[in-house]
Amino acid sequence: MTELKMYFPGKLVMGKGALERLTEDITAWNPERVLVVTIFPLLPLLKGLIDSLEARGVVVSVDTGIVQEPTFADFRELMSRAAPFNPDVVIGAGGGSVLDIAKLVAAQVGNPQPLEAYVGNGLLQGRYRKLVCLPATAGTGSEASPNAILVDDTDNQKKGIISPYLVPDVVYIDPLLTLSVPPAVTAATGLDAFTHCLEAYTNIYAHPFIDMYALQGMKLIAENLVRAVRDGNDVDARAQLILGSLLGGFCLGPVNTAAVHALSYPLGSAFHLAHGLSNALLLPHVMEFNLVAAPRRYADVALALGCSRAATDEATARAGVGKVRALIRDCGIPSRLAEVGVSSASVPDLATGAMEVKRLLKNNPRPVAWQDAVDIFNAAL
Amino acid sequence: MTELKMYFPGKLVMGKGALERLTEDITAWNPERVLVVTIFPLLPLLKGLIDSLEARGVVVSVDTGIVQEPTFADFRELMSRAAPFNPDVVIGAGGGSVLDIAKLVAAQVGNPQPLEAYVGNGLLQGRYRKLVCLPATAGTGSEASPNAILVDDTDNQKKGIISPYLVPDVVYIDPLLTLSVPPAVTAATGLDAFTHCLEAYTNIYAHPFIDMYALQGMKLIAENLVRAVRDGNDVDARAQLILGSLLGGFCLGPVNTAAVHALSYPLGSAFHLAHGLSNALLLPHVMEFNLVAAPRRYADVALALGCSRAATDEATARAGVGKVRALIRDCGIPSRLAEVGVSSASVPDLATGAMEVKRLLKNNPRPVAWQDAVDIFNAAL
Repeated sequence: MTELKMYFPGKLVMGKGALERLTEDITAWNPERVLVVTIFPLLPLLKGLIDSLEARGVVVSVDTGIVQEPTFADFRELMSRAAPFNPDVVIGAGGGSVLDIAKLVAAQVGNPQPLEAYVGNGLLQGRYRKLVCLPATAGTGSEASPNAILVDDTDNQKKGIISPYLVPDVVYIDPLLTLSVPPAVTAATGLDAFTHCLEAYTNIYAHPFIDMYALQGMKLIAENLVRAVRDGNDVDARAQLILGSLLGGFCLGPVNTAAVHALSYPLGSAFHLAHGLSNALLLPHVMEFNLVAAPRRYADVALALGCSRAATDEATARAGVGKVRALIRDCGIPSRLAEVGVSSASVPDLATGAMEVKRLLKNNPRPVAWQDAVDIFNAAL
Repeated sequence: MTELKMYFPGKLVMGKGALERLTEDITAWNPERVLVVTIFPLLPLLKGLIDSLEARGVVVSVDTGIVQEPTFADFRELMSRAAPFNPDVVIGAGGGSVLDIAKLVAAQVGNPQPLEAYVGNGLLQGRYRKLVCLPATAGTGSEASPNAILVDDTDNQKKGIISPYLVPDVVYIDPLLTLSVPPAVTAATGLDAFTHCLEAYTNIYAHPFIDMYALQGMKLIAENLVRAVRDGNDVDARAQLILGSLLGGFCLGPVNTAAVHALSYPLGSAFHLAHGLSNALLLPHVMEFNLVAAPRRYADVALALGCSRAATDEATARAGVGKVRALIRDCGIPSRLAEVGVSSASVPDLATGAMEVKRLLKNNPRPVAWQDAVDIFNAAL
């Protein structure tokens, strides 16, 4: 058993309507100013929280400026508003983009380090404001991870900031926040969460403590994703799905992702694809590439997806890939790169970009050379 | 899905020899004084930690006064030494008794509330000192739970103190601390941890998030307990076992235990039996009593223990009880109350005592009346 180091949110509350209880946790900190980073469509669902904070004399500022995967420039712009407001508490309510930037704002307020000084792993020296995360998509798992991702405007690459200080103090998982997520976003974000679990379970650095989160996460997502895509108001499916996504988030800190995410990054940057969609487009192809290197682990994945055990682990594993293909198909989202405008001419550059994401490629159960990446992109075209 | 509220230790480190890394975490808090609550036999294993803290100018005080399940009086006596020392950090290194009292010391130093004011659930108003827990038995799970138990000297009853403030800041799970635990203690504490998982999984308030910990915990303990009992130096078995025990601890906060623990409390108090042993003596009998009320859940337990699925859930569940009996037998500890000096004459009083433990009995999947408790004790005689 390899050594495991893991950071948890101090308090986790999960349940339909649980958000009603959050005011009490926040007022226990006696804050004067609370910054809510969110998106415009969530404001009606956050009104009760904001009103009850204001009724207790807390000054609340709401920022809805982040509407896509944030860049360094977006972060600086948001900080130009957040720094003078000087919140005691930062609440992020939204998908991965919103949670990631809320985490970074909480870490930056009152912190003399500039952003450049802490891009990377373990460079952030502290966080001086309370941080609350409220996921509103079942995908990112950012609420449970020490990671945040920003696009570097200078090279258009996604850069990771990884630090224990980016794990929130308090997390509320309320499926009611996810009911209005449209079917295509539900599908893409759900498959992203699934990929977090799968890449942790089949990871070179897999660990029995994390395996538990990964297997349960895959099971919950596989069982509930299509239900939630077809009927967004299915609260039970939404609840199981957002739990699966949280479990994927727990996988991200200590074990993290691998080749799907590494290959997905340049794809997302070059073609402005949503992170979940670019993962979903690559997922079955990376699984096929990887499974020969870890047939036992991929067989376990297949069993968690409800496949029966076949004659060999490899055969079981291949059935699992079939199940993932069916899941993507049943979600009704694009399943080929060509459908989203990726041409074969771009593949060499995409492969070159993927080779840069060494921090994730090193986790992959099978080494990925440039030619392998080319082959995977071509298979996915 | 019912609402779940859970408190986590902020940082969890797990691995053979991981303890070597703890000094860094503690010195990051810049403490002047550190109190180590432990037992004498662990001192050689803690020497490296203590020496490295002292080498950094930290004043370390070591207290080895707690050698059995602590009473209110024991706590007061320990506080009479701890309060004047006024530690910035309290480290508990030991089994459940040591961890529980270390948690309470950390919560009491600098806290104007007297003990009487916070015995019960949710009454502690804060903790003003850092708390580190290092489990040295694979059993209690106290390192991951918001619970501490003290024996009330006035009525000889075990009283629970339950508070989010009793969850440690930092937990190190190092199997090397458990190698010297004797076989009988390994067995009893391991069966206690198993019972935490089982009673959470079959609980009225069971939750899918906790089910995951419970099932994985039962599996790890069932697979490794006899190995660790037979060869205490089997580091891999010890590592899997202490992970199972941690998972049992995660079950304790949000879901908690049920009738096994409720019936075990008066047994432990009246006959001075170790907590793990008194649970083990009752476990199969409570399982048999309960399984008719929750055959599906008890069948899942059996499957986690490696049983095959039988014709009905109830039959599968009964095979699980057989597996638990075999586990207890293979551990070589007493399996009948009569073997540890309990006579049938004491059963009515034991049953009356158990009926008092309403906070746990309410969790049980089948209501337990006084006569039921009498029958269970008699079956276990």
